[in-house]
Amino acid sequence: MIKAGVYGGTGYMGGEAIRILLEHPDVTLSWATSRKADNISFSHPNLYGSAIDFIHPDDITPCDIVFLALPSGLPMEIVPDLISSGHKVIDLGSDFRIKDPLVWEKIYNKTHISPELIKEAPYGIPELRREEIKGARLIANPGCFSSAAILGLAPLIKNNFIDNEKIIIDGLSGTAGAGAMLHKSIHHPEIANNIVPYNVTKHRHTYEIEQELSLLNNNKVTVHFSSAYVPIVRGILDICHVFPKNRTSLEELFSIYESFYLNEKFVRIYRLPKDKNTSWQYKPYPWVSTVAGTNYCFIGLDYDDERNRVVVYSVLDSIGKGGAHVGIQNMNIMFNLEEDTGLKRIGAHP
Amino acid sequence: MIKAGVYGGTGYMGGEAIRILLEHPDVTLSWATSRKADNISFSHPNLYGSAIDFIHPDDITPCDIVFLALPSGLPMEIVPDLISSGHKVIDLGSDFRIKDPLVWEKIYNKTHISPELIKEAPYGIPELRREEIKGARLIANPGCFSSAAILGLAPLIKNNFIDNEKIIIDGLSGTAGAGAMLHKSIHHPEIANNIVPYNVTKHRHTYEIEQELSLLNNNKVTVHFSSAYVPIVRGILDICHVFPKNRTSLEELFSIYESFYLNEKFVRIYRLPKDKNTSWQYKPYPWVSTVAGTNYCFIGLDYDDERNRVVVYSVLDSIGKGGAHVGIQNMNIMFNLEEDTGLKRIGAHP
Amino acid sequence: MIKAGVYGGTGYMGGEAIRILLEHPDVTLSWATSRKADNISFSHPNLYGSAIDFIHPDDITPCDIVFLALPSGLPMEIVPDLISSGHKVIDLGSDFRIKDPLVWEKIYNKTHISPELIKEAPYGIPELRREEIKGARLIANPGCFSSAAILGLAPLIKNNFIDNEKIIIDGLSGTAGAGAMLHKSIHHPEIANNIVPYNVTKHRHTYEIEQELSLLNNNKVTVHFSSAYVPIVRGILDICHVFPKNRTSLEELFSIYESFYLNEKFVRIYRLPKDKNTSWQYKPYPWVSTVAGTNYCFIGLDYDDERNRVVVYSVLDSIGKGGAHVGIQNMNIMFNLEEDTGLKRIGAHP
Amino acid sequence: MIKAGVYGGTGYMGGEAIRILLEHPDVTLSWATSRKADNISFSHPNLYGSAIDFIHPDDITPCDIVFLALPSGLPMEIVPDLISSGHKVIDLGSDFRIKDPLVWEKIYNKTHISPELIKEAPYGIPELRREEIKGARLIANPGCFSSAAILGLAPLIKNNFIDNEKIIIDGLSGTAGAGAMLHKSIHHPEIANNIVPYNVTKHRHTYEIEQELSLLNNNKVTVHFSSAYVPIVRGILDICHVFPKNRTSLEELFSIYESFYLNEKFVRIYRLPKDKNTSWQYKPYPWVSTVAGTNYCFIGLDYDDERNRVVVYSVLDSIGKGGAHVGIQNMNIMFNLEEDTGLKRIGAHP
Repeated sequence: MIKAGVYGGTGYMGGEAIRILLEHPDVTLSWATSRKADNISFSHPNLYGSAIDFIHPDDITPCDIVFLALPSGLPMEIVPDLISSGHKVIDLGSDFRIKDPLVWEKIYNKTHISPELIKEAPYGIPELRREEIKGARLIANPGCFSSAAILGLAPLIKNNFIDNEKIIIDGLSGTAGAGAMLHKSIHHPEIANNIVPYNVTKHRHTYEIEQELSLLNNNKVTVHFSSAYVPIVRGILDICHVFPKNRTSLEELFSIYESFYLNEKFVRIYRLPKDKNTSWQYKPYPWVSTVAGTNYCFIGLDYDDERNRVVVYSVLDSIGKGGAHVGIQNMNIMFNLEEDTGLKRIGAHP
Repeated sequence: MIKAGVYGGTGYMGGEAIRILLEHPDVTLSWATSRKADNISFSHPNLYGSAIDFIHPDDITPCDIVFLALPSGLPMEIVPDLISSGHKVIDLGSDFRIKDPLVWEKIYNKTHISPELIKEAPYGIPELRREEIKGARLIANPGCFSSAAILGLAPLIKNNFIDNEKIIIDGLSGTAGAGAMLHKSIHHPEIANNIVPYNVTKHRHTYEIEQELSLLNNNKVTVHFSSAYVPIVRGILDICHVFPKNRTSLEELFSIYESFYLNEKFVRIYRLPKDKNTSWQYKPYPWVSTVAGTNYCFIGLDYDDERNRVVVYSVLDSIGKGGAHVGIQNMNIMFNLEEDTGLKRIGAHP
Repeated sequence: MIKAGVYGGTGYMGGEAIRILLEHPDVTLSWATSRKADNISFSHPNLYGSAIDFIHPDDITPCDIVFLALPSGLPMEIVPDLISSGHKVIDLGSDFRIKDPLVWEKIYNKTHISPELIKEAPYGIPELRREEIKGARLIANPGCFSSAAILGLAPLIKNNFIDNEKIIIDGLSGTAGAGAMLHKSIHHPEIANNIVPYNVTKHRHTYEIEQELSLLNNNKVTVHFSSAYVPIVRGILDICHVFPKNRTSLEELFSIYESFYLNEKFVRIYRLPKDKNTSWQYKPYPWVSTVAGTNYCFIGLDYDDERNRVVVYSVLDSIGKGGAHVGIQNMNIMFNLEEDTGLKRIGAHP
Repeated sequence: MIKAGVYGGTGYMGGEAIRILLEHPDVTLSWATSRKADNISFSHPNLYGSAIDFIHPDDITPCDIVFLALPSGLPMEIVPDLISSGHKVIDLGSDFRIKDPLVWEKIYNKTHISPELIKEAPYGIPELRREEIKGARLIANPGCFSSAAILGLAPLIKNNFIDNEKIIIDGLSGTAGAGAMLHKSIHHPEIANNIVPYNVTKHRHTYEIEQELSLLNNNKVTVHFSSAYVPIVRGILDICHVFPKNRTSLEELFSIYESFYLNEKFVRIYRLPKDKNTSWQYKPYPWVSTVAGTNYCFIGLDYDDERNRVVVYSVLDSIGKGGAHVGIQNMNIMFNLEEDTGLKRIGAHP
């Protein structure tokens, strides 16, 4: 059994890591931390009766792997010690994602105190970097919008299929993505009948997406990204508008995507005939609800042949395939387990 | 491996049975039926890519157990054949719940064509009828509101603790409980900002609850039940107001409930100290979200010592512990599996 | 023109008072206060561009009537000065509702510093106390659950029609009723898929309801009240279960209610034939959405003739007929305006 | 008093027209039609007690102005008669919006039987075509997404400020925009936790937007539009991504918009300093809830100076400023009333 710890257990990301590690057949959850160290059910009422409680971070014991669910800036402080004492580390946060420390420092407005660790930490998208992840000590788990956008655009970018300068992405997020910290914009009476734009320009995930897509394309890729909260809880949708260099067809697009993700268990290209029972206007696109609480990313495609635009719909759960679940997928790779161990949950409906 | 079939797979109850049978380690899902027999993803987009598709009911093959997720009136037509051809049957519907055929016929406004099977079918609440279920060929799986109410009140009724004549229950249901059939009251624009009362008197579940509680008490129990939809999707809450024969205390009440459900894995008495970080008004009561998609029933308690009233909050998922999941729990009992096999899911948060 | 001020403008009650006073044809809104005195659009984005901004409470100027939207305990500090300087006052809070100061002090856990004003302040339900309101200097505007319950039960209580000891009320509230103050239970990810019980016993409104119903009946009335938040924003529903002294009929019940509220503009007894286009289970009951943002209370009725129970559904908006709007109705009465001036809004659908 | 009729009263657009005409001080609502002609409260429970009921379309009587809230294809059948019998007509539908009949026939897949009326019917955006509207007999009221997009982009297009070829719009709609007709995608259990893309390419409103913006710019404008439903009820948000020909600044952008809409009562440029009380990530953008049920369009702006992209957020209510309310604004213009008569409602909060 792999001994695992969760550092920072009170937030939604930490809570989800705890939940799926408790259900993982090859893992013993050794501990989860909270500075307040009070009853875990106050933070996560779903865990009432689940035989785990918080410990104070000062009381952690050695284990095989540590998941960090911490605010940005804290991981870089504690990772060096964790690594040097023999732990493998999955940073679910953002401290090691951006490979250029100067860029990181500009967008996070902090000095990076462990820049030497940035380089060795693979950007943890298994579908693109499986081999690097296998041998790593430290994983920079990707951002949620970034995961959806990179998985959604990789086939086109890798095939140099589209205009690199005009990639427009509207990222729509459920409120779980805003976190457990109270905030006026996420107060139920405020948001329940609203759509709340935030980080409309220069969203931090923009830089991750540009970095990873540029690497895939061997050329600079510019991403125009904006985000908004919608009043759902779990899951994000990246709507990506891109412009093919040449005219194409929906058939060709599906073919590119299906071959790119041919052997991947957790990325599904959503291709269904039109449902005869629904009206003309509803082709089946992937719905965020179907991936909530799972490690799946579903991708849908459409093409405007009058105006030569491709629309890519990429959905995942920000604390699922865009967070804690993909962290466990990375752990499985690092420990030579079957990649889907403990991650086979099928999404619920409705 | 147990070979299982799901009869009536297009609705929410059938879809949930399919989902958890697909994940059950000791079950092979042989088939799921739909008269239209089209792509299963049109009914359940979560199952896209899950290597199962509908068959027409005429094409079913023999298996060990069949789950029926059918409108009332259909099970009584097909169960005799299924039983006589050696199947065990879990009826997730209502055809065999009411033990007096005359009462059944009055409230369902139909003639019962298999009354001889009613008697042999245990009312499938494992916590109360485990031994009967073990040897049964046919289970009458309980109604959702009924499960919550019976589990919530059994400790008090069994102990003859309360006034049998004044049991008032407000059952609040998410819209999944209304089913997949389109209906004006469940149209999103209509209900999203609403609370929609329905079946305000003589709700069919009333008769199940009265029947089972009367059996437990050996005396007639009268239940005043009303229901309403609230704009959540999964889960129901039964708010039960009852009046103790003598003055009591919260401490005594918890003690009664905790000893009654001492060894039960799926019924949890929600007893937490008040969270110091929340305001005076929020004691922790169980939340429906914490049991959505699981086989858990959480029960909370309160007592008004000025007016000698007990309030019991009982939450479960209408297609979880109040439906398909408890059906699988019953199957586990019938096949001598560990009772929680395939049912260990912890609820999600948020 | 009546000059009006709103004391405490940042919360939802204060914001609603501002909105409808701005639209009132016979009122000039002189000021609205906020200790922070910043841009009103931060508190109420709907008021962007509406030519009003907050002032500090120290800067208020004399006017004809002041609406108080303040936390409990503050009104009793400032009302004596406001009254003695010639203002009429509508307290939208709870300082003057409970007529026995000892009861008030017990349930609000404070010493009342203006007990002499309690007696002169009519409990502001116009349908029951129109004459007292006409001559008053100070109105104790009722609580939201209380308004719904008192209006919903007054016809039965006044007619001595039901058992005074077994009145059970489940009060369901939208989250606007929880206020603008951030709170974990109202954080969108927590409540969006939940029903959140709170104040399950000894809710402060219980005492108002008991006080007013006892006065109507000339006998002690006991109310068993519990409340819960549901994930809608505006509006409350009181589900009242009561037991007639003698058997009755739906026809008799409607007749009692319709004659009781015969000439009332803002209380509507919701009596519709069953919609032929909906299924058997949906009789038309009043929906909270139809009264959101208005001064209407809609009341629906049902009767279980098997068990002799009456169910009363009473809906209103907690900051509408249960708050700021009825405050303006009281103002209209005090200033001899047509009672519905500035209050004719029809609810929206959907 | 203007005598008005509403043709097609059962849908949400018709219901909203009825509601605001009932409250309009200079209008008498003569009739509203429904083929079923049953109780209006079954369609619009908010109108219970409002002294209006449906009549059959065969029973209509002459009046001054008729509002059509009909499915596409019906208006062109009845408008010629209405016009020739002296009625003014506001078509809230789409039969007269597209000025090229061949384009209309292609996208609506019907033959247009009144092409001669298309030309005389101004596309009814008062802010752009006030003079034409004043003298018109027939108004082609704009589509909801179109209104938001055209108002949101007109200042930039008119000033020839941006690249005409790369205008990307994500239109997000509440479910009221899907209409009262039952549909699986709008069934509450399906959409409540979802974002539902539809009409992802070649949405019919695309052609209106391109037509009107091209006229404003005197050059061909290409619009890349996609739409999705989000689980709110009222209101739409158009997120418009555009690319300035030259680098610009937020200050310059606000200046362009504020001067363009200087004297307009119903278009507000949402420009607020950052709220000191919110975190770094929330600048104030306009929220759809603030315009629900009103005739306002709020516009927000942002600029990415690293990548030279402008983001325009345009919010309105699809049956408010994007539907029935702007229809009444057009009526006011046609009848020489103050343009805001009967339209002064301030949005609610929360």
